[in-house]
Amino acid sequence: MSSKASLGPSRDTDFPNWYQSVIEGADLAEHSPTRGCMVIKPYGYAIWDKIKQQLDQKITAMGHENIYCPMLIPLAFFEQEAEHVDGFAKECAVVTHTRLKQEQGALKPDGELDQPYVIRPTSETMIGHLFAKWIQSHRDLPKCVNQWANIVRWEMRPRLFLRTSEFLWQEGHTAHQSQQEAQQMAQQMIQVYGAFANEQLAMPVTLGEKTADERFPGAQVTYTIEAMMQDGKALQAGTSHDLGQNFAKAFNIQYQNADNQMAHVFTTSWGVSTRLIGGLIMTHSDDHGLVLPPNIAPYPVLIIPIQAHKQPEVLEACKALQARIQQQQPTLTVKIDQQHHLSGGQRVWQAIKKGVPIIIELGPKDIEKNQLVYRRRDQDASQKHFVDQAEFTGQLSAMLSDMQSGLYQRALKRQADLVNYFDKRSDFEQWMKEPSGFAMVYCNYNDQIKQQLQQFGLTARCEVTKSPLAPDRPVAGPCLWSQQTAPLLIIAKAY
Amino acid sequence: MSSKASLGPSRDTDFPNWYQSVIEGADLAEHSPTRGCMVIKPYGYAIWDKIKQQLDQKITAMGHENIYCPMLIPLAFFEQEAEHVDGFAKECAVVTHTRLKQEQGALKPDGELDQPYVIRPTSETMIGHLFAKWIQSHRDLPKCVNQWANIVRWEMRPRLFLRTSEFLWQEGHTAHQSQQEAQQMAQQMIQVYGAFANEQLAMPVTLGEKTADERFPGAQVTYTIEAMMQDGKALQAGTSHDLGQNFAKAFNIQYQNADNQMAHVFTTSWGVSTRLIGGLIMTHSDDHGLVLPPNIAPYPVLIIPIQAHKQPEVLEACKALQARIQQQQPTLTVKIDQQHHLSGGQRVWQAIKKGVPIIIELGPKDIEKNQLVYRRRDQDASQKHFVDQAEFTGQLSAMLSDMQSGLYQRALKRQADLVNYFDKRSDFEQWMKEPSGFAMVYCNYNDQIKQQLQQFGLTARCEVTKSPLAPDRPVAGPCLWSQQTAPLLIIAKAY
Repeated sequence: MSSKASLGPSRDTDFPNWYQSVIEGADLAEHSPTRGCMVIKPYGYAIWDKIKQQLDQKITAMGHENIYCPMLIPLAFFEQEAEHVDGFAKECAVVTHTRLKQEQGALKPDGELDQPYVIRPTSETMIGHLFAKWIQSHRDLPKCVNQWANIVRWEMRPRLFLRTSEFLWQEGHTAHQSQQEAQQMAQQMIQVYGAFANEQLAMPVTLGEKTADERFPGAQVTYTIEAMMQDGKALQAGTSHDLGQNFAKAFNIQYQNADNQMAHVFTTSWGVSTRLIGGLIMTHSDDHGLVLPPNIAPYPVLIIPIQAHKQPEVLEACKALQARIQQQQPTLTVKIDQQHHLSGGQRVWQAIKKGVPIIIELGPKDIEKNQLVYRRRDQDASQKHFVDQAEFTGQLSAMLSDMQSGLYQRALKRQADLVNYFDKRSDFEQWMKEPSGFAMVYCNYNDQIKQQLQQFGLTARCEVTKSPLAPDRPVAGPCLWSQQTAPLLIIAKAY
Repeated sequence: MSSKASLGPSRDTDFPNWYQSVIEGADLAEHSPTRGCMVIKPYGYAIWDKIKQQLDQKITAMGHENIYCPMLIPLAFFEQEAEHVDGFAKECAVVTHTRLKQEQGALKPDGELDQPYVIRPTSETMIGHLFAKWIQSHRDLPKCVNQWANIVRWEMRPRLFLRTSEFLWQEGHTAHQSQQEAQQMAQQMIQVYGAFANEQLAMPVTLGEKTADERFPGAQVTYTIEAMMQDGKALQAGTSHDLGQNFAKAFNIQYQNADNQMAHVFTTSWGVSTRLIGGLIMTHSDDHGLVLPPNIAPYPVLIIPIQAHKQPEVLEACKALQARIQQQQPTLTVKIDQQHHLSGGQRVWQAIKKGVPIIIELGPKDIEKNQLVYRRRDQDASQKHFVDQAEFTGQLSAMLSDMQSGLYQRALKRQADLVNYFDKRSDFEQWMKEPSGFAMVYCNYNDQIKQQLQQFGLTARCEVTKSPLAPDRPVAGPCLWSQQTAPLLIIAKAY
């Protein structure tokens, strides 16, 4: 490929700038004039839409019903759950006025509210209020709702997709008759997220539980999926919370049970956000730009007509090819690149930066020979494959499946290569001084260990429940500190 | 039907309470603890989701690309277009703080912002800023984006779906090289909305132009679709704005044209919102509750198993029927009502209140005879139709089409019956004192006429471009006041 075929910053030498360049090169998003907020551009939004559609199908098939709750939450709601308000008080957007007025030639807030509102940083409090109203009897349980919404958590060090003051997400909320049922739901949802990350995003994730100080404010258990990025840092990619009766008691969510007694429910909440796109980028992309697994690519196949401005039959041939592919795979999106003011080479390079899985070129010579030229984004994209058109359409489905599983395997191998197991505390403490990737150690985590880790910018990511990185390793073993039986803990730097 | 088969308030005697009862009976939405805001409940959200999916398909097929912009707009942006800020200054939610603190046992706003933000009441200003950045050359034009988002406009007299402080909508924004192109786009979009209202919502709408004082703040022309509710009041159901160069100049959106000269673009914006659901309700519903056209019903067919708790084969038979229907119509949603703790009668009554187009009952006796019982919600739902199952599935598609067009025709007839044409000013002025329905008059609208109308709670809805209510009436004629050539104006009370 030409000298243009690199983004500039490389993964190895400048990961943060490389990340920014991948986003810019694929035109996914950009910073906005609103501090800490991003604009999600068409290609980035198309990826989010794929995530949304696929997850929504899974969530609603399980019986969770979509609703929409007000974004503005009365301030008083936050006072009802002490841990919750402590967790979010430092990053709230507060609405205090309902009008603007002109004053000395400038606009000023006017119409001050008696009671301010907080833009939802999450909706447990609003849902708590509503559940208390909606749930009367055991027949109303389980109550399972979900919403796709925007969220504001004020962010001082924004990074596109990873940390933005406003982001898009899905938040599910359920209420149950028993602790066991709530726990099962929280666990089931983290498994749904895990399967989605593995199968659709081809992003290998470890399922685990957060330690007490990394829990969601108000949760009794927080389940998490943790991924490892190519720089070895961890990314929390989704969480599911067993809230016990904390919110049920704070908002007095009671029902009459089968014995005609009043009882508090048990609740859960769980969510994934536009942060998943950040994870997707940092899992697969390379120095040429974005790499997308076919299952999540807005268009897994792009056809670039060559010399179509000179020979009109080229565009016809492209459309015929598109039709033949879609006849065989009706749900596959095949796009034709109609940017005729760009050269073929420019369009190929753009498609590479956008991570299009299969990039096809079709020109007059190919049509003559009934062939086409294709590139695979998961392999060396400078390599052109010349192939008979019928043969190609016959192989395409298998090729896309192969790419999907291949990307997962490649990402898994990268992660596994950066995992460090320690049986000896001294080895771990040596690593800690110059950490890279994940450390996996048996550990009864406590404040002292936490402080030790913090000195080196490390955090406890999760107590492993199930990990493709440690398929054979027991989830419990002798603690490196106390020698008592302890969970398998992942320790790493994190986004 | 039983005595329960009425909602309570009737359309004729108490329209506002009837409206509220339809929403409650169908469990679509409710008021929330956040002043002026509603909670959209599962069935209401499912209707919005149908609207969203169908419209999104139309919008994206036209080449508009979905994006997502920050909800918080810097206050200074509003100062750049004078009419725009005047239009929205009185109903803005203003974010002034970024934290909460405990003070004397209560939570107070903390971390005051230097520059407040306004929650978007609409996004022309943010888009103006972004277009100025994104548009450089004539090759970047037309620029066509759309977003699905939440909006806040502080509302003092909230009504579910019709007027709420927060609502959901779609807002499209485009930029063009010429005034003509922008005008065409604005007109094309109002036609898209009109076709959607007519064909999917079965809600007949009149296409027209707003008079100057009803225009969107900052627009040079506002196109509108106006529907008439069953009480004869008008509902503005969607608008499309030709913004000329107002925002292009305010935000300096310039491009280099083919002659290498810098020129300002011409922009448009257009939107529909959850208000459409209010229109849907008030167009079709009756004293038994909601009536939904099949094209917009979350499930056009509901199967109610009778005595399934006693005889397990009933549920099997219902599933087999569901499968046979869906085999013939794969895109049709057929739901089985599994609320076995409710009697058949209770479930039928619930389905009637929810406006399910076709309600099927299937019990042991029906299975024996290979028949089923169905009711049509658009007809007298107390009437049961006994029909052979195979015959039913063969007729279903035609029945649903018939229902869709029948509901449109019925609504159109209701509207037409409430239209009053006036050739004489004295007749109009007589009507004005006790107005009902729409008045259609040729009128060169001015401030004096406006003030006259206001005394009686009337407004100029639109200058008619195309109306199913006046298919043969010319869009221009002699003004009843000035005798000069004038547009055909609709005058009515409005939501």
